Amino acid sequence: MKRGVLIVLSGPSGVGKGTVRKALFEEPDIDFTYSISMTTRKPRDGEVHGEDYFFVSRDEFEANIKANNMLEYAEYVGNYYGTPKSFIDETLASGHDVFLEIDVQGALQVKEKMPEGAYIFLTPPDLKALKERLQGRGTDAPEVIERRVAAASSEIRMMANYDYAVVNDEVETAVDRIKNIVQVERLRVNHILPEYIAMIEEFEK
Amino acid sequence: MKRGVLIVLSGPSGVGKGTVRKALFEEPDIDFTYSISMTTRKPRDGEVHGEDYFFVSRDEFEANIKANNMLEYAEYVGNYYGTPKSFIDETLASGHDVFLEIDVQGALQVKEKMPEGAYIFLTPPDLKALKERLQGRGTDAPEVIERRVAAASSEIRMMANYDYAVVNDEVETAVDRIKNIVQVERLRVNHILPEYIAMIEEFEK
Repeated sequence: MKRGVLIVLSGPSGVGKGTVRKALFEEPDIDFTYSISMTTRKPRDGEVHGEDYFFVSRDEFEANIKANNMLEYAEYVGNYYGTPKSFIDETLASGHDVFLEIDVQGALQVKEKMPEGAYIFLTPPDLKALKERLQGRGTDAPEVIERRVAAASSEIRMMANYDYAVVNDEVETAVDRIKNIVQVERLRVNHILPEYIAMIEEFEK
Repeated sequence: MKRGVLIVLSGPSGVGKGTVRKALFEEPDIDFTYSISMTTRKPRDGEVHGEDYFFVSRDEFEANIKANNMLEYAEYVGNYYGTPKSFIDETLASGHDVFLEIDVQGALQVKEKMPEGAYIFLTPPDLKALKERLQGRGTDAPEVIERRVAAASSEIRMMANYDYAVVNDEVETAVDRIKNIVQVERLRVNHILPEYIAMIEEFEK
């Protein structure tokens, strides 16, 4: 059984991660398993355990933290939210690709624990276009424009921590690029070699 | 100017590197620059300097070795053959992709000096298929078959030194995979980041 590929899509807030993810999951030839988060908040009407979230008690969540099973986690408004490693591990081992959409902070934590994934940084189109768009609108003062461009600069520098950078100029193009990345990740030697070694050992018995 | 991608195609002898390379260069949407070797042998009729080879004197070749300009070289029948770094560097800097087809020995030497390339190991189809094909022919003794399978095993283990493994089951499939790899290499952060950093610095002036 060939292991699945872990795909981590991240990027600055507002870059359009959710839109790209939705378009990606609508592709007919894509069969990613979405990484399910664990939380201590109560399920809302219609939410299903093991589908929307893994709904657990505070004790259970903290036991997962202690057992080093949380790839990343954070606390918001008194509830824990995080990414359990075991679910991702099992899904990958069963040969399915896992897709994780996550903010930059979380992605870097996940990367420390699972460096073998494909870490994709969704980046805003270039600064020139951004600045021109802001100037073209004619609604922002020059110093506001400068501040927004500076913020975009510092966000873009974060891409250094990723494997791939995909410009989100057009959703369809971004989706195609991500699909290509996943195909090519399957050709990476660290992905293929275990299978070949197993095959060789089978023959050398 | 975005730097080109260095594509190094290698693999065990007899795996079909030349066939794949030819098919790749016939693709209409491919515009790779073939890495030109340097040699001290005399040009044959019709061979052109800077096209078939860089034809140089022994002194000049040795000066290149001393100047650390040979990514790899070897001596055959009294003549030097090798891969000059400067040509590859200049071509990449001009934004063109460079394609280098080379044996495993040479590829590993090149990788030490230019680790940023995409190192592709063309691998024979799986050992089971190989063994079955050999058995099916019915011409080889079992110990000959075992020896050939063992040789294929040790060749396949060499893939650990590469970035990608492409199975050469069908030439067209192998070509498509290599084209995909090159597209995705252009999305790698270490390829894109310098351009973005330059853009940011331009804005921060």
